[in-house]
Amino acid sequence: MNDKPHEECGVFGILINKKTDVSRSIYYGLNALQHRGQESAGMAVCDTHGEKGNINAYKGMGLVSEVFHEDILKSLPGNIGIGHVRYSTSGSSSIENAQPFFLKYLKGTIALVHNGNIRNAAGIRNELEQEGYAFQGSSDSEAVAARIIKERLKTDSIEEAVTRVAAELKGGYAIIVMSPKKLVGIRDPLGLKPMCLGKLENGYVLASESAALNAVGAKFVRDIEPGEVVTVTERSITGEQSLIRERKAHCIFEYIYFARLDSSIDGIDVYDARIRGGQSLARRYPVDADIVTGVPESGITAAAGFSRESGIPFRIVFYKNSYIGRTFIKPSQEEREEAVAQKLSILRSVVNGKRIVLIDDSIVRGTTIRKLIEMLKNAGAKEVHVRISSPPFKYPCYYGTDIPSGKQLIADNYTKDELREMIGADSLEYMEIEDLSDMVGDLQICRACFDGDYAD
Amino acid sequence: MNDKPHEECGVFGILINKKTDVSRSIYYGLNALQHRGQESAGMAVCDTHGEKGNINAYKGMGLVSEVFHEDILKSLPGNIGIGHVRYSTSGSSSIENAQPFFLKYLKGTIALVHNGNIRNAAGIRNELEQEGYAFQGSSDSEAVAARIIKERLKTDSIEEAVTRVAAELKGGYAIIVMSPKKLVGIRDPLGLKPMCLGKLENGYVLASESAALNAVGAKFVRDIEPGEVVTVTERSITGEQSLIRERKAHCIFEYIYFARLDSSIDGIDVYDARIRGGQSLARRYPVDADIVTGVPESGITAAAGFSRESGIPFRIVFYKNSYIGRTFIKPSQEEREEAVAQKLSILRSVVNGKRIVLIDDSIVRGTTIRKLIEMLKNAGAKEVHVRISSPPFKYPCYYGTDIPSGKQLIADNYTKDELREMIGADSLEYMEIEDLSDMVGDLQICRACFDGDYAD
Amino acid sequence: MNDKPHEECGVFGILINKKTDVSRSIYYGLNALQHRGQESAGMAVCDTHGEKGNINAYKGMGLVSEVFHEDILKSLPGNIGIGHVRYSTSGSSSIENAQPFFLKYLKGTIALVHNGNIRNAAGIRNELEQEGYAFQGSSDSEAVAARIIKERLKTDSIEEAVTRVAAELKGGYAIIVMSPKKLVGIRDPLGLKPMCLGKLENGYVLASESAALNAVGAKFVRDIEPGEVVTVTERSITGEQSLIRERKAHCIFEYIYFARLDSSIDGIDVYDARIRGGQSLARRYPVDADIVTGVPESGITAAAGFSRESGIPFRIVFYKNSYIGRTFIKPSQEEREEAVAQKLSILRSVVNGKRIVLIDDSIVRGTTIRKLIEMLKNAGAKEVHVRISSPPFKYPCYYGTDIPSGKQLIADNYTKDELREMIGADSLEYMEIEDLSDMVGDLQICRACFDGDYAD
Amino acid sequence: MNDKPHEECGVFGILINKKTDVSRSIYYGLNALQHRGQESAGMAVCDTHGEKGNINAYKGMGLVSEVFHEDILKSLPGNIGIGHVRYSTSGSSSIENAQPFFLKYLKGTIALVHNGNIRNAAGIRNELEQEGYAFQGSSDSEAVAARIIKERLKTDSIEEAVTRVAAELKGGYAIIVMSPKKLVGIRDPLGLKPMCLGKLENGYVLASESAALNAVGAKFVRDIEPGEVVTVTERSITGEQSLIRERKAHCIFEYIYFARLDSSIDGIDVYDARIRGGQSLARRYPVDADIVTGVPESGITAAAGFSRESGIPFRIVFYKNSYIGRTFIKPSQEEREEAVAQKLSILRSVVNGKRIVLIDDSIVRGTTIRKLIEMLKNAGAKEVHVRISSPPFKYPCYYGTDIPSGKQLIADNYTKDELREMIGADSLEYMEIEDLSDMVGDLQICRACFDGDYAD
Repeated sequence: MNDKPHEECGVFGILINKKTDVSRSIYYGLNALQHRGQESAGMAVCDTHGEKGNINAYKGMGLVSEVFHEDILKSLPGNIGIGHVRYSTSGSSSIENAQPFFLKYLKGTIALVHNGNIRNAAGIRNELEQEGYAFQGSSDSEAVAARIIKERLKTDSIEEAVTRVAAELKGGYAIIVMSPKKLVGIRDPLGLKPMCLGKLENGYVLASESAALNAVGAKFVRDIEPGEVVTVTERSITGEQSLIRERKAHCIFEYIYFARLDSSIDGIDVYDARIRGGQSLARRYPVDADIVTGVPESGITAAAGFSRESGIPFRIVFYKNSYIGRTFIKPSQEEREEAVAQKLSILRSVVNGKRIVLIDDSIVRGTTIRKLIEMLKNAGAKEVHVRISSPPFKYPCYYGTDIPSGKQLIADNYTKDELREMIGADSLEYMEIEDLSDMVGDLQICRACFDGDYAD
Repeated sequence: MNDKPHEECGVFGILINKKTDVSRSIYYGLNALQHRGQESAGMAVCDTHGEKGNINAYKGMGLVSEVFHEDILKSLPGNIGIGHVRYSTSGSSSIENAQPFFLKYLKGTIALVHNGNIRNAAGIRNELEQEGYAFQGSSDSEAVAARIIKERLKTDSIEEAVTRVAAELKGGYAIIVMSPKKLVGIRDPLGLKPMCLGKLENGYVLASESAALNAVGAKFVRDIEPGEVVTVTERSITGEQSLIRERKAHCIFEYIYFARLDSSIDGIDVYDARIRGGQSLARRYPVDADIVTGVPESGITAAAGFSRESGIPFRIVFYKNSYIGRTFIKPSQEEREEAVAQKLSILRSVVNGKRIVLIDDSIVRGTTIRKLIEMLKNAGAKEVHVRISSPPFKYPCYYGTDIPSGKQLIADNYTKDELREMIGADSLEYMEIEDLSDMVGDLQICRACFDGDYAD
Repeated sequence: MNDKPHEECGVFGILINKKTDVSRSIYYGLNALQHRGQESAGMAVCDTHGEKGNINAYKGMGLVSEVFHEDILKSLPGNIGIGHVRYSTSGSSSIENAQPFFLKYLKGTIALVHNGNIRNAAGIRNELEQEGYAFQGSSDSEAVAARIIKERLKTDSIEEAVTRVAAELKGGYAIIVMSPKKLVGIRDPLGLKPMCLGKLENGYVLASESAALNAVGAKFVRDIEPGEVVTVTERSITGEQSLIRERKAHCIFEYIYFARLDSSIDGIDVYDARIRGGQSLARRYPVDADIVTGVPESGITAAAGFSRESGIPFRIVFYKNSYIGRTFIKPSQEEREEAVAQKLSILRSVVNGKRIVLIDDSIVRGTTIRKLIEMLKNAGAKEVHVRISSPPFKYPCYYGTDIPSGKQLIADNYTKDELREMIGADSLEYMEIEDLSDMVGDLQICRACFDGDYAD
Repeated sequence: MNDKPHEECGVFGILINKKTDVSRSIYYGLNALQHRGQESAGMAVCDTHGEKGNINAYKGMGLVSEVFHEDILKSLPGNIGIGHVRYSTSGSSSIENAQPFFLKYLKGTIALVHNGNIRNAAGIRNELEQEGYAFQGSSDSEAVAARIIKERLKTDSIEEAVTRVAAELKGGYAIIVMSPKKLVGIRDPLGLKPMCLGKLENGYVLASESAALNAVGAKFVRDIEPGEVVTVTERSITGEQSLIRERKAHCIFEYIYFARLDSSIDGIDVYDARIRGGQSLARRYPVDADIVTGVPESGITAAAGFSRESGIPFRIVFYKNSYIGRTFIKPSQEEREEAVAQKLSILRSVVNGKRIVLIDDSIVRGTTIRKLIEMLKNAGAKEVHVRISSPPFKYPCYYGTDIPSGKQLIADNYTKDELREMIGADSLEYMEIEDLSDMVGDLQICRACFDGDYAD
């Protein structure tokens, strides 16, 4: 069940205007963003009332709950902080590329967290290298951090430096820079990557998704405007808007798959979008069947939408063994797809003799869905009709999403009919590109992975 | 979400009639039974063609996937074996009480796994102690193992010894005894604890639930008869039936909560029973509402049944963060119920302005459901009507189920109306005892925890 | 450097006559006995003022400092306790055989620790098995514990039971049995295994070696008499002497190699015995040389003795890298002896151009000494004369010492002259059996491993 | 026994002119240098025949054998590499400051290891920061690495860049820079820090001490000249000598305490120097006594020298328990010095009734020696005369040695006579500054920690 596109990161920032340690809140916030990246986790904190520049940081490989323990949280005092969860896209999978980045420079110290992909990062990096700069890791984010520091020496404030550097950046990004007194958040002008603002009784929160606000008891205020530079201090919150453009290109995959079901992004509830996606599919590609179901968990909501539109009852047909974790020993010598059967099993009495609509949000290698269809048929299903709640991937993503490419993509190598036969389905249909607006209305979206039309 | 009654154990046995190592199959079988006990896991294996008595065993504290690693499985060769997962009831929580028990005696070696509670274990233990016998741990199972060994010296076969000892046992139990050549399974005459038989191409499997058969590719053959002693050797499978009685008392909680949704026990599919439970509730205590939902995961299936009967649409309203594991740091200084909010969050758009039926399978301390109702109301729910798919617990279980007692039980300390008010529900109803037959038809059940009518 | 005979265990017991936890003292005591066994460590403690029988125990594989941590010591309250370090001889290397053994029986609970080998353990075990008794592990000690419990049912006190059972035991042993109120220590009538008594301000200590008394601040009182059963309670210390015999057979290897240099056993200081051994060698097999040295650490003291007698100056010539621990990665693809060079290196300027006497306490496989001689010659040594401060092993030990046997023993397979040539020495001599009395005077010793004359 | 001055680091480099992986050799080399730093360990390796710049690195906190495992060594292929062990002086104790430093820049990648202290590092760092450069950690070494990279952009080779930067550095240092094809080693012009060159059949080795050459089977070629820049490639080894000055100032503490007994530094064997130190002490401050002994291990060799000169016999009087490692639980609530008694115990029969000369190499807090003298007296020593084989510390070290300062130094706060009384000695004498030449002849040494005469 690992053949899915991957979001690469989640970012979180918090400043509380009193003597309160925020490390525990960052922990809960990052935990709520864990679905955006499971490779590494980290945080940096500081006391705004303390000695200048005394930022403490900790990061490690693994889940938030693996990296941080009670005593580590206690060793990270301070009322301002940022955090990060990472799934690697650019930059290799190692602790050198884990975030926050943490740099000491002439005027003090900054820490930085970043979600996204800077298309011109190589250029920025090279320019700095020409001047003699060197880097520890290979990520875009380190180059951006170095660039901001360089700009900071010529400007009066960190937010001014961030704004100037942002004007040069191309791509999709949500970045939070932390100085010992301030948080500066920025979102790319196209709005490819999400970030929102929340309010606590005595402070503010910045986060990739609204679900992370809830996790720390913050109230959702608004999405950060694409291109906006938000600066949070103990006394104020200000927004610099010079980079805001009319043209937007919000990543449609946040709605299809990445974001948490309980998040709301750029004015649209993720849950509602998925329900509408399923409804759209039911209208476009109806099917005569007895029950509708979804591949857990990614297909469940669209399946509920398909059910509502079609009137075909929704049923849960897969039981998921929740005890299968990272250390689970996979069946050996057999095919990869056999592992699916240890994690998911069939509720036989629901399936037997039924014509089934099976919804998933995407097909990458096709191994999982082939196995599930086989299991359904073995359990007595008469027909299995597959409906995918997104169009087929055809183009790489340059904005920080790990879309499997070329040879890995079954949709790229076979016709829809060949594919239908390979997975053993009785019918197979994808959402049409023109129907994506059924999910998100008139929101300007990036759908380059489907049609190759890149926004910049 | 830990305030639930607890099953205490799962047992698994396998014999393959060729040179095949079964340790990996036991691993998958135990993994499929993990919901029955997460405290310790263990297995014992032997080669039926090898030197007599050369049983190897390994056990440890924690989940199956934590205790066993690839190299440990490889160090456990042999084509016959048993396994166990444990949640402690009698006997304290320590490695001494982990199973399989493994004993060397005059005629060889046996290993034993046990699910259940022997009501007269103290007497059996005392009788052995009078003769000078000593024990390492405090569990019932160790006393039974010692008793079987003593009997074995006077009989011709291990199955005869097991049968004789079983004739003396009172309570609920499912036991598998393994000698270097045989598996002997026994289920208590009342059928309180489940055990079933499965067939592989070259062998047989015994397991607490049918779901564990599927996990190793075995076909379900039949439930073991209550009171039956089944002996599996390389050449034959035989059943000794002298202890079978007409009176049965199957534990109703297997259907309500313990067993996996995809298991079938004593002829009844667990999933179907839960759906019928929800339907029964809807008939008995209908409510005028907009949507029906269940507390994940335990209330989801009954909620679907309630929806089918009432016609009120079923909606998923809670998002569950699946990354919260054992090492997750709980919110401190706040009430326990706040932890719920880190694990479950609300899909606001589904809930807002709605009258909601909320189904769960039981209420123990009531803290979780109180918090969930508060979250629903905060998210805009107009009304929350709670329906519980089992009657209130009133009596302790003497058969090996960890039913919270007296002071922990909110139902024992308050009237239904006081309780309704405490949890903040607009109405609260429990399944009636007489409606339990709606779930399981004319199956003879033990419902002593509800009505105090103990079967022996 | 692992080719040495091995002692198998160390035992320790303590009772303090006030409300003081002894777990930490047991920790220090076991640590002082660590050289006697590094495979597993364990302790059992109890509060003599507490509820009857409430003994807590903890044991694990590895060194004392690996098995026990601060929080584990804190979880083991009580003013009476016993401890054990183990190197396995009989019984396989697994946690089932780790000690203390801890058994619940009719009259309460006992714990037991044991150093040595019971020659008739199989018979005792079989007798118990005939009566239906079963065992978890394969060690002698478990059989003795079960036998004591059986006897306890027929007697008035634990010390009486121990005395009766001891009358039946053959072999070498030092055992401490702990009931919730008493420590009972016994040493085999031949005195093969050591045990001594120490006094604290408010209590008593029993230990395999006097060095362990020092480690807990106890004053040495006396050696336990071979055959004596010592009972320590809060109020008294008593000795039962009925098993004491005139014939003794103290293990000479305690003086040659096993015991700590700072221990005193049966009236003889270990250090002094080793010095005298070296002196004896120098008298019997003098050599014309420039310096004397010893293989660290086992040959250093005898080398000092050789130097004193011969007048040839003692020099340290090997530097030992103390950072090489268990996890050190051994040189691969090369011979085992190459590993020696990572641990020991030569002080070139001391060795160059010199005729050297090299002392070690024994030769088993000969690989280490061959490598050291090669290193000495490469560093410029003109001659290397080897003197071994014990006679060659010729016979197995039946009393609990792991003397390498037959094929492993280089002395058994080659003449002294062949061996001298194989290791590259210019001369090679062993201590003569008749000179052993130079080490220990008129102490009655067991030297069966050298001459095959077994004491029972 | 931790109250000693501390060396801060050991460096190691190797290049083999064929397809051989050097990671294992670096492991053995670092292990042989472990005494120079136990806080962190790391290595970086590269294949000179591979793609340009593909350096792999791994570092971690702890001992070499804790940081590196078989699979990690295997994941580090290549025939050129450097390694480092660290004890922190400047720069805090965290993984950010562990070495090698590893930086990607315009022309490729370099890795760097460093032993020592750059007196003008802050200036170098500030200059780089003025240009916008930022740093991850706080160590001197990172600043030097960045400075070398900057210079590299203006020069034709890495060795030229190193030479230019070295011309600006003040202080004591031994640095190895590794590019994907070359090793460049440099030693400070005063020779404060040691480094030597060794030859393998197909390659070369650079190391802090000659003992590390032996560990990998390399032959000692020569010490690197103070100020020399040595460049090792597959084809050649060249030395750039422009920075060589006449004035030298070799750190005397390498001979007194830091270096391994089996190393030879700048033409002088460490063992011989220590023997001569003890002889010098015996001449300057003779004493009428029965035996001479040393505090293990640091005082043993000087004690042997004292014995040779005075004719008073050398005796080992302390037994050291070698099983006390890092995780050993220290005695609590008692004074720190009590811990000494768990590690060292007295050979009573050697000490009783004797007048003893006790040698150690230095006194810092004095707690250890006070405890040892108390133990000796308790064991019956009639007199204890302390002789210290170095002068008292009076001044801080600016060259990278962690000399305890001011208040920690007992010698700084009390007169010699007060100190003698405090530690309970019958007499106390230190080596005289003018006698240091007895140890090292006419070698130009730095003795600033004794007399405040700093070399630069």
